[in-house]
Amino acid sequence: MNEVSRISKIASSIAPSMIRRLFNLAKTMDDVVDFTLGDPDVQPHVNIKESACRAIMTGKTRYSQNAGLIELRECIGNRYQANEGLSYDPATEIAVTVGAMEGLYLTLLSLINPGDEVIIPAPFYVNYKQMVEMCHGVPVIVSPSNKTSLSVSANDIENAVSTKTKAIIINSPSNPTGKIFSAETLNQIAGIVKKRNLVVITDEVYKKLVYDNIECFNIASIDGMKNHTVIVNSLSKEFCMTGYRIGYILGPEDIVSTVVKLQENVAACAPLPSQYAAIEAIGSNEDYSAEMVTTFTSRRNVLCKTLENVPGLNVIVPEATFYAMVDIRGLGYQSSEKFAYDLLNSAKVAVVPGIAYGDICEGYVRIAFTLSEDRITEGTKRIAKFVESLNK
Amino acid sequence: MNEVSRISKIASSIAPSMIRRLFNLAKTMDDVVDFTLGDPDVQPHVNIKESACRAIMTGKTRYSQNAGLIELRECIGNRYQANEGLSYDPATEIAVTVGAMEGLYLTLLSLINPGDEVIIPAPFYVNYKQMVEMCHGVPVIVSPSNKTSLSVSANDIENAVSTKTKAIIINSPSNPTGKIFSAETLNQIAGIVKKRNLVVITDEVYKKLVYDNIECFNIASIDGMKNHTVIVNSLSKEFCMTGYRIGYILGPEDIVSTVVKLQENVAACAPLPSQYAAIEAIGSNEDYSAEMVTTFTSRRNVLCKTLENVPGLNVIVPEATFYAMVDIRGLGYQSSEKFAYDLLNSAKVAVVPGIAYGDICEGYVRIAFTLSEDRITEGTKRIAKFVESLNK
Repeated sequence: MNEVSRISKIASSIAPSMIRRLFNLAKTMDDVVDFTLGDPDVQPHVNIKESACRAIMTGKTRYSQNAGLIELRECIGNRYQANEGLSYDPATEIAVTVGAMEGLYLTLLSLINPGDEVIIPAPFYVNYKQMVEMCHGVPVIVSPSNKTSLSVSANDIENAVSTKTKAIIINSPSNPTGKIFSAETLNQIAGIVKKRNLVVITDEVYKKLVYDNIECFNIASIDGMKNHTVIVNSLSKEFCMTGYRIGYILGPEDIVSTVVKLQENVAACAPLPSQYAAIEAIGSNEDYSAEMVTTFTSRRNVLCKTLENVPGLNVIVPEATFYAMVDIRGLGYQSSEKFAYDLLNSAKVAVVPGIAYGDICEGYVRIAFTLSEDRITEGTKRIAKFVESLNK
Repeated sequence: MNEVSRISKIASSIAPSMIRRLFNLAKTMDDVVDFTLGDPDVQPHVNIKESACRAIMTGKTRYSQNAGLIELRECIGNRYQANEGLSYDPATEIAVTVGAMEGLYLTLLSLINPGDEVIIPAPFYVNYKQMVEMCHGVPVIVSPSNKTSLSVSANDIENAVSTKTKAIIINSPSNPTGKIFSAETLNQIAGIVKKRNLVVITDEVYKKLVYDNIECFNIASIDGMKNHTVIVNSLSKEFCMTGYRIGYILGPEDIVSTVVKLQENVAACAPLPSQYAAIEAIGSNEDYSAEMVTTFTSRRNVLCKTLENVPGLNVIVPEATFYAMVDIRGLGYQSSEKFAYDLLNSAKVAVVPGIAYGDICEGYVRIAFTLSEDRITEGTKRIAKFVESLNK
C-alpha cells in the first residue's frame, strides 16, 4: 500500500511551519533562550484565572451556542462600541471562536470558492497562506515594491487585485514587523475593497500591544466599510491567554452566520472555561491589557537597547507587538535560516529566520520578547558573543 | 451588492442542523423538558475539575505542541493498550483535538480530494455529512436494506463502495440508535476495507456508555486493520465534559502527522485547562466513567419503562449511549418533524425528529436522557398526556 497517496493533495501541499521546526529543535536542547514563539511567559490576571475556575467548579461547562455565550458576545460588542465607536449586534454579527486562528480559518472557508485569490501583504504571518490553501484558495503574496521598506503600499495591493480576488488579509499591527498601517494607507485600501467589492479580513490580535501611544486606526470605521470587513481578534496576546484558545470575530451578518454554521462541524463551540475567563478579561472595568503594555514596553526597550550595540546588527524598533525584526545582512549571511540554525547550535539562542515571512524578510530574523528581562538580557549577551565569534 | 453571492458554494450548501433549530426554539420557551441535546447535566468528577483549575492557577496555560501534551498522549496510549490491547506510539500515532468533532473534521480534510466519496451508514450523526461536504467530498449515505432494522449490514456497505470511495465512517455504539456493531459485522467491513484499500474512521465517543456488559469490539484490533483505521474519541460524553472541548485520535502515522500539521492552522492546539483535566480523567487509577454508566443505566430504565406503557409508542431500548429511539408510527404521524414541533408546542417537550438522521429514521424520534430522573419522569408524563390527547 502506498501510504503517501492516500493523503489529500491539499493536505500534502501544506508545509509544516518553519517556526515550529525551530521551536521543536530548541526543545531537544538544554538551556536554550527561546525567542521563537509568540507565547508570553506572563500569566493572565488572577481575576481572569478565577473566573475560569469558578465556571469549572460550578459546572458551567456544558455546550454553549455555536456562536458562543451571549454574555460574552455582548461584552465584545460593548468594547468595540466604547473603544472604536463601532456597532455590532451580539446576536448576529459577533461569534466566539477557538482563538483568532479558527475565526480566520472559518471566515476564509465561508468565502473562498476553489481558485479564488486572497491577497496577503508580505511580510505575513505564515499560517495565512496555509489557511487559504486549505480552503482550496490561491494565496497571492504581495511584497513591498519599495525594497527598503518592510510594509506594502496600497498601490502594491491594488496591482495584485485580479478578477479572481475575493479577499485581502491585513494584519496591523503586523507580526513579524510590529508595524502599523497608517490611516491614509487603510483609506486607500478601503477604496480598492469597495470599488472591487472585496472583503477585508483584519487580524487585530496585537492591537492593544501598541507602544508610545501610536494610534491604530480601524478600517471597519471607514464609511461603507463595515459590510466589507471581518474583524478577527483574540485574547491570546492581549491577556496572555494563548493556551485558553479563545478569540472572536465581528462582521456582517451573512459572513458571521456562515462562520457559526460551519463552527457546528469543526469545534461545536469555544471551550467554556475560556469563554467565562474572557467575560472577565473583556467585560471587567479593570483594564487588564494596560498591564501587559507596561511589561512589554520595558522588555522591548531592554532588547533593542542591548542589540543596538552589537556591530553588524540593525534592530527595527517595533511600534507594537512583542516582536522585533533584526537585520543581519551586515554579518555577511546570505540565508536567515542558516543564521538561525548556526545561532541555535553555537549559542543556544532560538530565533525565527525572516524567510519564514516571505522573501522580503530574507536577511532578517524575528525575535519574540516574550521572556523575562533577565532571559532577554542573557539571550542578547549570547547573540553578541556569537556575532563577535563570526569576526574572528 | 449581492450579499448571498459572496458566501462560498460549499458553505452555502450546508444546512444548519435540525437538532440545533429545535434546541434554539425550545430555548425561547419556559419550562421545557429538553430531550434534544447530547449534553449531560451530570458534572465531571471533582478531581477532573480540580486538575483543570490547578493548571489555570499555576499558569500551565501556554500553547502545547499542536499534537497536544505528550503526557496526555501517553495516558491515551496506555489506556488503549490496557483496555483494548492496541499499541499506539504517543509521539507519532496519537493527537489531541478540540473534541472528537475537530478530530473527525481534520481526519477527513487529511484524506479527501474533491469528489472523493465517504460512506456514511444510516442512521447517522448529522455532522458527518456536513463535514464531508466541507472537505469537498461526496457523502454516500447507506440505508439498511432490511427496512425493519435500524442498522446496516456489511453487505449494504459493500454495495455502496465505488472506485471513488476513500473512507467509511462507523459509529458504534451509534448515535442515535444506541446500537453496537457485532464483531462479525466489523470483520466483514474490515474485509471490504482491506480489499479496497480504504480508511475506516471509527467514532467511539459512546464506547464507555455501554449497558448490560455488552461487548464493544474494536475494528482496529482485526489483523491488518491498524494501518487502515483512525479511532476518534472524546471526553465529552464519557466524563460529561462537553464544554471542555477535548478529544483525540489514534491512527497510522501518515494520517495523524497530517492532522497535526493541519491543526496548526485551525486551532493551534486543544485548550490547555482541558488537556490537564483529561490527564486526570484518563490517566487516573480511579474509573470515573464507571460512575457515568451507573447513572445512565438507571435513567435509561426509568425512561424506557414509563414510555413502554404509552399506547402507540414503541421504544427501542438502547444497548449503549444516552439516546433512545422511539417509534411513533403507531400514532398516525407521517412526519417525525411535525410530531416534534407539535409535542414541543403542545406539551413543552423537545425531542429530535428521526428524519434528521436519514430517511430510514422517519417515523422515529430521538430522546436524549441527559436529564435528571425527575425531569425524565416529568417529560414522559407530558408525552403520555400529549399522546392521549391525540386519540380524543
